[in-house]
Amino acid sequence: MVDAILDVAGLPKPDDAAGRAAQAREAVLTKPLRALGRLEELTAHLCAWQGRHPPIMDKVEIHVFAGRHGVTAQNISAFPASVTDQMVVNFQQGGAAINQLAAAAGAGLTVHDPFVGHATRDWTEEEAMDPASFRAAVDAGRAAVGDGVDLIAIGEMGIGNTTTAAALCAALFGGGGLEWSGAGTGLSPDGVRHKAKVIERALARHKGRLRDPVEILRILGGFELAAMAGCILEARRRRVPVVLDGFVVGAAAAVLFRLAPDAIAHCLAGHVSAEHAHRGLLARMGLVPILDLDMRLGEASGAALAISVIRAAMACHLGMATFAEAGVAGKL
Amino acid sequence: MVDAILDVAGLPKPDDAAGRAAQAREAVLTKPLRALGRLEELTAHLCAWQGRHPPIMDKVEIHVFAGRHGVTAQNISAFPASVTDQMVVNFQQGGAAINQLAAAAGAGLTVHDPFVGHATRDWTEEEAMDPASFRAAVDAGRAAVGDGVDLIAIGEMGIGNTTTAAALCAALFGGGGLEWSGAGTGLSPDGVRHKAKVIERALARHKGRLRDPVEILRILGGFELAAMAGCILEARRRRVPVVLDGFVVGAAAAVLFRLAPDAIAHCLAGHVSAEHAHRGLLARMGLVPILDLDMRLGEASGAALAISVIRAAMACHLGMATFAEAGVAGKL
Repeated sequence: MVDAILDVAGLPKPDDAAGRAAQAREAVLTKPLRALGRLEELTAHLCAWQGRHPPIMDKVEIHVFAGRHGVTAQNISAFPASVTDQMVVNFQQGGAAINQLAAAAGAGLTVHDPFVGHATRDWTEEEAMDPASFRAAVDAGRAAVGDGVDLIAIGEMGIGNTTTAAALCAALFGGGGLEWSGAGTGLSPDGVRHKAKVIERALARHKGRLRDPVEILRILGGFELAAMAGCILEARRRRVPVVLDGFVVGAAAAVLFRLAPDAIAHCLAGHVSAEHAHRGLLARMGLVPILDLDMRLGEASGAALAISVIRAAMACHLGMATFAEAGVAGKL
Repeated sequence: MVDAILDVAGLPKPDDAAGRAAQAREAVLTKPLRALGRLEELTAHLCAWQGRHPPIMDKVEIHVFAGRHGVTAQNISAFPASVTDQMVVNFQQGGAAINQLAAAAGAGLTVHDPFVGHATRDWTEEEAMDPASFRAAVDAGRAAVGDGVDLIAIGEMGIGNTTTAAALCAALFGGGGLEWSGAGTGLSPDGVRHKAKVIERALARHKGRLRDPVEILRILGGFELAAMAGCILEARRRRVPVVLDGFVVGAAAAVLFRLAPDAIAHCLAGHVSAEHAHRGLLARMGLVPILDLDMRLGEASGAALAISVIRAAMACHLGMATFAEAGVAGKL
C-alpha cells in the first residue's frame, strides 16, 4: 500500500477560463502581441492554477527541506556530511544565500528538518527508508503547504543528495549512473566516475524492486526528496502553483512525473542548474527553465530568483494600460 | 571631425583589485566555490567598474530614449509611426511595461525625447542626420548620465527602429539586410523580406561612405540610437556599469564596439531578445545575456528585469555568512 502515499488520481485540472482571461488581457495591453514572451505565459500559468483572474502573489512561500544521506559513507561528496547540520543552522541564523534571496524576492522562508539527527540508510547496502519513515517524510512535505498560499518555491539541503537524485533518475528513466552523475558541490572528474559506480552498484542490488516510482523513491531516495514530492503533490491538490529549484528538486518532481506526467503540470522550472543532468531532466519532463545562470547551489536559490521574474510579470499584467486607455494605436 | 563625437580613446579601465576583492569574498561565503554562477560574475563586474568593494546599488537609473524614423515611410513597421508619440505619453502616464518593471526593480525611470516633433530623414533617400543634429543627439545621451549613479540600464522606443538597427548592423558587420532583419513589432515573413530589401537599397545608396562606425551611425542611425551610444560612452567615462536591453540598444553599443571592442567592456547584456538578429549580435560582441525570456518589447524591459538579478547577486555577496562566521566546514 506504499503507492497510496503519493496518489496522483483525481488531481485538480487547470482553470482554463482564468488562463484565457489572462491571455485576453495581455492582448490589449500597450505592447505588441506576445512581446513580453515568457512573462505572459507565467501570468497565464498563475491564473490557470490559482483558478482566478487577476492572479495574486501576496503570500509567497519558500520551503527548504533538509535531509541526511547514509550514502555519504560511500565518499560521494566534496563536503563532509556534517555540513548538512551546519547549513541548517546557517539558514536559521540568516547567513545562507537563500536567506538573502528570499528577502530579495519578498518571500517567506521556512526550513524543514523533520528528521534532524537521523540519516536515511545507505542505499548501496539497504533500502533508504522503511515504509513508516518514508510516509512520515512525505507527510512532512504535505504539512508544509499552508492555507491561503499563492505560490510556493521548493528547495533542499543535504550533503550527498545529488547522488541520491542521480540514482533516482537512473531508476526512473534508465540511462545508467554516469548519465545522471555530476560534480555536485565540487567533485573531480574521478569523483564523478566513482559516484556513477556507486549508483550502478545500488541499481544492481535493488534490481527487480525498482519498477514503481514510489517504491524507487523509498528505496533510493532521501527524507528531503520524499518530503518535496509530498509538498509538490499537496500544492497541486490545493491549486497552488509551484516553482521548482535545481536537479535534486527536479528528481523529486520526476517521481510524480513518472506516476503521471500531468501530476507536475502546476510546476514551473525556476532555473536550469549547472549540475550535469539537470538540463536533460527538465527536457524529459517538458519543463522550460525561467533562468539559466550557471548556478548549482540548491537551497531554492534559483527558484527564489525566478519569483522576482514572476512578480515582474504580474506587475506588467496588472499595471499596464490597455491600448484604449492609453489612446495608443494598434497594429496596422 | 565627426569621429570626435564618440571618442573611445583613453577610456577608464576596470579596477582589477576591486574585482579580485569580490572574488575573494565569494570564495569564503557559505556555498561551494562558484555555486552562484553568473551572480558571482555580476558582483565582480559591478565592483571592477564601480572601482570599489563592496559594490553599491543605491542609485539605479533606467533611461529610455525615444526617436522617430523617416524610414517608416518605407512601410517597414507593423505599427503606425504615430505610436512613438503615443507611447511616450504612455510612459509619462505610467501605463507602459517599463513603468511597472522599473518599479519592480527599484529603479528610477527617465524617458528622454529630445527631438519631439522631429524625425530623422529617411535613410533610404538621404543621410539620417546632419552633423549638427547627430551631435545634439549624442550629447543628449551623454547628458542623461547623472552624478553618483551606481548602475544604468538603457532602453528605447521608436517605431521603425529595428529596421534602423538592422541597417546599422549590416553596415557595421556585413552580412546583408536579411541576416539582420526580424519581425520587430510583428511583421509577417513577407514584411521581413521587404524590410531587408529596404536596408539593401540604403546600403547601396550610401556605399563608399559607410566605413567609419560613427559615420554609419549618423547616416543610417536614429536620434535614440545616437543618444544611447553617447549615454553608454559617458557612463564608461564615469565608471558606471551599464545594462543593455535588446536588439536596438545592442546596435547602438555595436557602433562603440566597432570603434574599439573594449569600449563596451563595462556593459552587461540584460537579456537576449526574441528579435531575430539579437542573439547573433551579442555573440559577435562577446556578451552573454543574463536573461532569455523570449521578450521583444524594447523600452529597457529586459534590462529592467536583469536589475533584479544583479540586486539579488549583491544581496548574497553582502549578506551571506562566511564559512568561518557560520562554523561550516569547507571542502574535503
